[in-house]
Amino acid sequence: MRIGIVGGGQLGRMLALAAAPLGLSVRVLGTDPDDPALLVARGSVGRYDDVAALRALAREVDVLTYEFENIPARALAAAIDGTGAVLHPPLVALEVGSDRLREKSTFEALGIPTAPFRDVPDAEALARAVAELGLPLVLKTRRLGYDGKGQKVLRAPADVPGAFEALLGVPCIVERFVPFRREVSLVAARSSAGEVVFHPLVENEHRGGILFRTRVLPEGPRTDEAERHVRALLDHFGHVGVLALEMFDTDAGLVANELAPRVHNSGHWSQDGCATSQFEQHLRAIAGLPLGRTFVRGAAAMVNCVGALPDLAALSALPDVHVHVYGKAPRPGRKVGHVNVIAPDEAALDARLAEVEALVRWA
Amino acid sequence: MRIGIVGGGQLGRMLALAAAPLGLSVRVLGTDPDDPALLVARGSVGRYDDVAALRALAREVDVLTYEFENIPARALAAAIDGTGAVLHPPLVALEVGSDRLREKSTFEALGIPTAPFRDVPDAEALARAVAELGLPLVLKTRRLGYDGKGQKVLRAPADVPGAFEALLGVPCIVERFVPFRREVSLVAARSSAGEVVFHPLVENEHRGGILFRTRVLPEGPRTDEAERHVRALLDHFGHVGVLALEMFDTDAGLVANELAPRVHNSGHWSQDGCATSQFEQHLRAIAGLPLGRTFVRGAAAMVNCVGALPDLAALSALPDVHVHVYGKAPRPGRKVGHVNVIAPDEAALDARLAEVEALVRWA
Repeated sequence: MRIGIVGGGQLGRMLALAAAPLGLSVRVLGTDPDDPALLVARGSVGRYDDVAALRALAREVDVLTYEFENIPARALAAAIDGTGAVLHPPLVALEVGSDRLREKSTFEALGIPTAPFRDVPDAEALARAVAELGLPLVLKTRRLGYDGKGQKVLRAPADVPGAFEALLGVPCIVERFVPFRREVSLVAARSSAGEVVFHPLVENEHRGGILFRTRVLPEGPRTDEAERHVRALLDHFGHVGVLALEMFDTDAGLVANELAPRVHNSGHWSQDGCATSQFEQHLRAIAGLPLGRTFVRGAAAMVNCVGALPDLAALSALPDVHVHVYGKAPRPGRKVGHVNVIAPDEAALDARLAEVEALVRWA
Repeated sequence: MRIGIVGGGQLGRMLALAAAPLGLSVRVLGTDPDDPALLVARGSVGRYDDVAALRALAREVDVLTYEFENIPARALAAAIDGTGAVLHPPLVALEVGSDRLREKSTFEALGIPTAPFRDVPDAEALARAVAELGLPLVLKTRRLGYDGKGQKVLRAPADVPGAFEALLGVPCIVERFVPFRREVSLVAARSSAGEVVFHPLVENEHRGGILFRTRVLPEGPRTDEAERHVRALLDHFGHVGVLALEMFDTDAGLVANELAPRVHNSGHWSQDGCATSQFEQHLRAIAGLPLGRTFVRGAAAMVNCVGALPDLAALSALPDVHVHVYGKAPRPGRKVGHVNVIAPDEAALDARLAEVEALVRWA
C-alpha cells in the first residue's frame, strides 16, 4: 500500500520511519529538499496550498494523510477529487483542528467541557467579549498559532486596546483563562471499522509556551474522563487515524484546550515505551490494519530538545535512554529532537530524568 | 556524522532506519535504485567492485561500513585511501569473513574449536583431503556461498569424483561433518575504545539451508564459552562494530562454523526485544558512541519470511508481534521480511510462535 504524507517535518519523518517495517511505501510532500521526512523517504517539494502539488502526490498513493493541520482544506479536497486516493483522517477533522472557533464550538456541541469563549472577528467584538466574560482572558488567532505563538494574555483593562491589532487583525477567539493543576493530553486512534484504542494519559510541562516534558500518568479517574471526550471527537469526525486532545486538569474536572487530528508531540515517548508507537498506530489505522496494543513498558517520559542538539555521546552512555534527532539545523525555539526515557519504575524514571534534563540543552 | 553503507539490501536498510533517530546522516551504495536501503536513505547505484563508485561514497562520509562481506577488500582499500573516511569494521575482518579458508585458519590460530578442514584448490587436493579426514565431509567454496548455496555434502566415496567441478572449479575448502545438537549464534559489538558488549546467545533453526527461526536462549554454560570465542575474534581483528559467530553446539562444546563481520539475521529479534538493537549497536560502535545495553524484554524470537510476503493484517491482529518487511519483490528462496515475537515468558512465546508460523508463508 502506498501512503502519501503531506508535510516534511519531524512528524512526517517519524511516520515514514514507522512505515518502512510495515512495508508501506511512503511518498512525502515537503517544502524543502532537506526536510526531515525527505531525508528518509522519497517525495517531492512544493507548497501545501498548491492544488497541483497535492494532486500529484494524491495520484501516486492509495491513502493520503497529513502531519500537520494547517493545510487549506479546500485545496486538499480539490486535489484528491477523482484521483482514487482516500484521505485519512477526514477533512472535517482537519477543518476543525485548524480553526480554534470551530474547535471550541465542536467541544461545546459534544458536551466536552471547555473554557467559555467568544468569536472575535474584530476589535469591537473583543471589547464586547471582555464586557461579557470579564478578565483575565486569552486572545488567540483562529488559525496557525502553535507553541504559544499567536496568543496574548489580557490581564487588565489596559491590555485590551490594541490587542486585536497586535495579532495583525486576523480573526481571533477569546477565551476565559482556566486555572489548572496541570496540562494532560490523550492520544488515541480510530480504525475505519470504528475500533478505538487509547494510548495512556500523559502530563505535559511547558517552558516558554513550548512542550518541555511529557510523562505517562498512572491510570486514574481522569483517564476515563479523557477517554470519553476523545472517543466523542473520534466518532463525531468518523475519524480514521490518530488524534490528540490537550486538556487542563482542574478541580472541576478536565477542560478541553485543543485537539490535533494527527500524531502529537506528547505521544513521542510511545516509540520506545509502548507495544505500539503512535506512529505505527496511525499507519495501522489509515492502512486498514488492526490497531495495536498500547500497554506501557515500565515508567515512561519524553524530554524535548529545543534550539540545540543534545549531547548524543553523553546521553548514549545512560541506560534506558533513547535519543531521536530530526535532522534539522538548530535555531532558537526550534524542536530538533527528543529523548525518551523508559525506566523500570517511577523512582528510577525520576533519577534518570534528572540526568537527562541536565544534558538536554534548551535555547 | 556521515555514515556510508556499502550494500543496499535489508541489512543496509535496517541500519539506515536505525541511524535516523541518532541523527546520523546515511549514504548508501546499492546496485539497483529500488534496493531496500535506497528506499529509506539517499545514495547512489554502482557495483561493489567498482573503485570509483566506492571512492565517491567514501568522499561523502566520515565512516564507511558494509552490510555484507563479499566486497573485494582490495577495491575497498583503494577506494578509501586518502579520502579521510574511516572503515569500520576493519579490512581484516572483511577479508577473513569472506574467505572460508582464512576464517577456519583464524579460528584455529585463536584456539576456537572448529571442524577439521583442508584447503581444496583443485580436485587432487580434494582426493587427498578425503583420504586424510574420511567421510562424511562438506565441500564449500572459499568465497560467496550463503544460505546453503555453494556447498556439497560428500557422504560416500561415489560422491567425491566430480564434486569439485560441480562447484565450478573455484577454490574450496572441505571440512568434517559436525554432529550437533543445535546451531547457536552470538552477536556482539566492540567499540573503538575496546569495550565489548554481547547480545544474548540464540538458537537458529534452518529450512532448506535458510534460517527459519531464531530464539533467544536462557543464560547457561554455553554463553560463557561463546562469549570467550567472540571476544577473541573481536580483539584479534581490532574490530569496531558488530560481529556474529555461528557455532554448532555439540557434546564436546561449541564448534565455530562461520563468522560475519556485520549485523546478522540471527540478531533481528533485537529490534523489538532488546534495549539496544544490533543495528543501533553497530552504529554506536562505528560512530564512536558508547555501546548500549542488551537486556532482553521477556522471551524473544524471530521468524523469517522467505519467498512470500507475510499476511500483514492477520499478523498485526496478534499481540507481541512486530512485522518487518524489506520492500523486496518476493521470489522463491528470497528473504523478504521477518517477524519478531516478544512475549512475557517462554510459554507465551511458544503459543504465539505457533500462531505466527501458521501465518508466515515459506516459498
